[in-house]
Amino acid sequence: MTGQDFSKVQLNILRIGDSMKRILLPPSKIGIIGGGQLGRMFALEAKRMGYIVYVLDPKENSPAGQVSDEQIVSGFDDFGALLELARKTDVITYEFEHINAEHLTKLKNMGYKIYPSPETLIKIQNKYIQKKHLIKFNLPVPRFERIESYYDLVSKADDFKFPFMIKFAKGGYDGKGNIKIENHEDILNLKNLKFEEEIFMEEFVDFRNEISIIVCKNEQGEFKNYRAFENVHEDNILRITKCPARIGEEVEKKAVSIANKVVESFCDFGVFCVEMFVDKYDEILINEIAPRPHNSGHLTIEACFTSQFENHLRSITNLPLGSTELIKNAIMINILGDKKIDGKYTIENLGEILKMDGVFFHFYGKSFVDKKKKVGHITIIDDDETRLEAKKNYIINNLKIGEFYE
Amino acid sequence: MTGQDFSKVQLNILRIGDSMKRILLPPSKIGIIGGGQLGRMFALEAKRMGYIVYVLDPKENSPAGQVSDEQIVSGFDDFGALLELARKTDVITYEFEHINAEHLTKLKNMGYKIYPSPETLIKIQNKYIQKKHLIKFNLPVPRFERIESYYDLVSKADDFKFPFMIKFAKGGYDGKGNIKIENHEDILNLKNLKFEEEIFMEEFVDFRNEISIIVCKNEQGEFKNYRAFENVHEDNILRITKCPARIGEEVEKKAVSIANKVVESFCDFGVFCVEMFVDKYDEILINEIAPRPHNSGHLTIEACFTSQFENHLRSITNLPLGSTELIKNAIMINILGDKKIDGKYTIENLGEILKMDGVFFHFYGKSFVDKKKKVGHITIIDDDETRLEAKKNYIINNLKIGEFYE
Repeated sequence: MTGQDFSKVQLNILRIGDSMKRILLPPSKIGIIGGGQLGRMFALEAKRMGYIVYVLDPKENSPAGQVSDEQIVSGFDDFGALLELARKTDVITYEFEHINAEHLTKLKNMGYKIYPSPETLIKIQNKYIQKKHLIKFNLPVPRFERIESYYDLVSKADDFKFPFMIKFAKGGYDGKGNIKIENHEDILNLKNLKFEEEIFMEEFVDFRNEISIIVCKNEQGEFKNYRAFENVHEDNILRITKCPARIGEEVEKKAVSIANKVVESFCDFGVFCVEMFVDKYDEILINEIAPRPHNSGHLTIEACFTSQFENHLRSITNLPLGSTELIKNAIMINILGDKKIDGKYTIENLGEILKMDGVFFHFYGKSFVDKKKKVGHITIIDDDETRLEAKKNYIINNLKIGEFYE
Repeated sequence: MTGQDFSKVQLNILRIGDSMKRILLPPSKIGIIGGGQLGRMFALEAKRMGYIVYVLDPKENSPAGQVSDEQIVSGFDDFGALLELARKTDVITYEFEHINAEHLTKLKNMGYKIYPSPETLIKIQNKYIQKKHLIKFNLPVPRFERIESYYDLVSKADDFKFPFMIKFAKGGYDGKGNIKIENHEDILNLKNLKFEEEIFMEEFVDFRNEISIIVCKNEQGEFKNYRAFENVHEDNILRITKCPARIGEEVEKKAVSIANKVVESFCDFGVFCVEMFVDKYDEILINEIAPRPHNSGHLTIEACFTSQFENHLRSITNLPLGSTELIKNAIMINILGDKKIDGKYTIENLGEILKMDGVFFHFYGKSFVDKKKKVGHITIIDDDETRLEAKKNYIINNLKIGEFYE
């Protein structure tokens, strides 16, 4: 053994001992569970920085798979496929929460790195457990109450003022599994509701603003947050995000402090999104947590020094976090699928839209369009508030999904 | 045939008639000849905008191939492979100029779209023809003279003051094929020079600044230029680019006007880079033209509203060009391979470098490092000149290519 080889061995020993804090430099291998648009934008950043990217998704040629080194085509519940992803990569992350956490726990126990951890995922993927976790840390959430039967619902309904919400703990995202109860008739309509999974009632928050704060944390314990994003939902689906949010400086400070506490409570690493309501008294209540980059953070790609995707990558590879500073005021508009178009589609007035300066177009490469499914987004950056709003309105009025002719 | 089908047929007829000016909307298919870093950065932008990307390159898993939908693995001289690329895509572009232009001409004559056109490529890929073209349009170039034998060289040398340059017309890039002649001894050393390919002498320009201006033009005739970039070469390889360049406003204006005239002279579409010398009298002489995005334009990715790659995509798909405005002052540093490292490599002090704000890291995913080959680059954006320079110096002093341990 030559002296040089010996030093290599020593280095490797040091590395194993220090492995938790070691930086995963490129070309390390990153595994992503989920091949949708979040995975795609994350993969684009990871490829830019020279990482090797593997994606696991059941749909061949998924949005993220298209820009990755390899896609493992398999269901999310397939432990063998998850193990293959773990074996092929240095760290695993995910782009959505509805993954079999038991599988991930098993992988973690085998010594594979998964960020955020399966423990955090378990606390977040069940909305009831999530809320219980948050109140344990004295974090402000809307009042909620578990209900286990229709009788339970009827008897507890008196305690809640109308309207209130019925939520399914494993309800998925984009508002699936949320029912607004306006009156006694709405309750009556639920008499056949099955209580096989956890259901809870929640106070309806008459919010003035919906905001989200994205926080990142790496293994070194470094913490960074973006400014508050203001979100507008339509039919429970995010339509528009704006930064800065139209909330006062003090409210933003308070929201940042809450978001940081939320992320601290998980003792974990990665990017987290904390969605909150601000009511007319400037009170803040936490709506939902996502242990991953979030739709409301897409504007960070162009409007901030470091995008949420790059900071997520930096978090899980233990690189220092990048500046989250806002470079220019921004608006993000989601492009949603249209049920009228069946098959290949495009954006009909893109030529007109891209005539405006500071307009960035993202299209996710999904083969078929579904009604109300996110197919792309547009970010506008402009320091002039009037121009920013004018561009937003022009795009909303002119953006049209049309058939694609080859 | 239903009414709806009929209207589709009509639309298609209109489209054929108007095909030259039609916008290629996503998910149209883009073909790139060449799978290096320029192709990679172009593909990353094209994927972001939802295009389908095919790459042709002889090396499997090329930098661009890694982020594209498909790579055709084949030599650039293989007409069958070029034809396959053309058949599979809606428009073809290239990331380097040393391609068989006859093949491209044949494809163009078969009706395939290639931008910039093979005619332009022919005028540019041979540096002697390029210079003849430029003087035809009264554009300022260093004095040059074709030499056809050693005798010719000796007799014409008297006419040129020392030092002067000997250049090979098909010399490749990064200064390959350029010889600086300082004295009679240097001439004597060339007595065995083969004159099989075109060789010419060129006046040596004692420049104060080397600059480049990137110009884009689309089929609608829309023209846009970026600000002047100032370039520092080492061993004929680009090392650093800075924007704004340290030249006066009037000089920049003159340089832009020259660059625009150069691009106009080709009557073509796409992104072009015009490299120029500025001497101590503020006189400008054109050094070289590239019919493609250029290394000196990498900083446009972060420092400008629209990157050179997106504007190249917009040009060849006939979308309107995006704003070329500079958002923040910027410096780009090329990362060059190191002969000492043989095999897998990484950037050793990346963790320290990324602690600084506004620092963007690009690593091209090349499997092996060659001496002086470009393996990545770093862009710094900062409006404060002192901080910008300090960050640049820190990076230059600390950036180190090291062995990669898996």
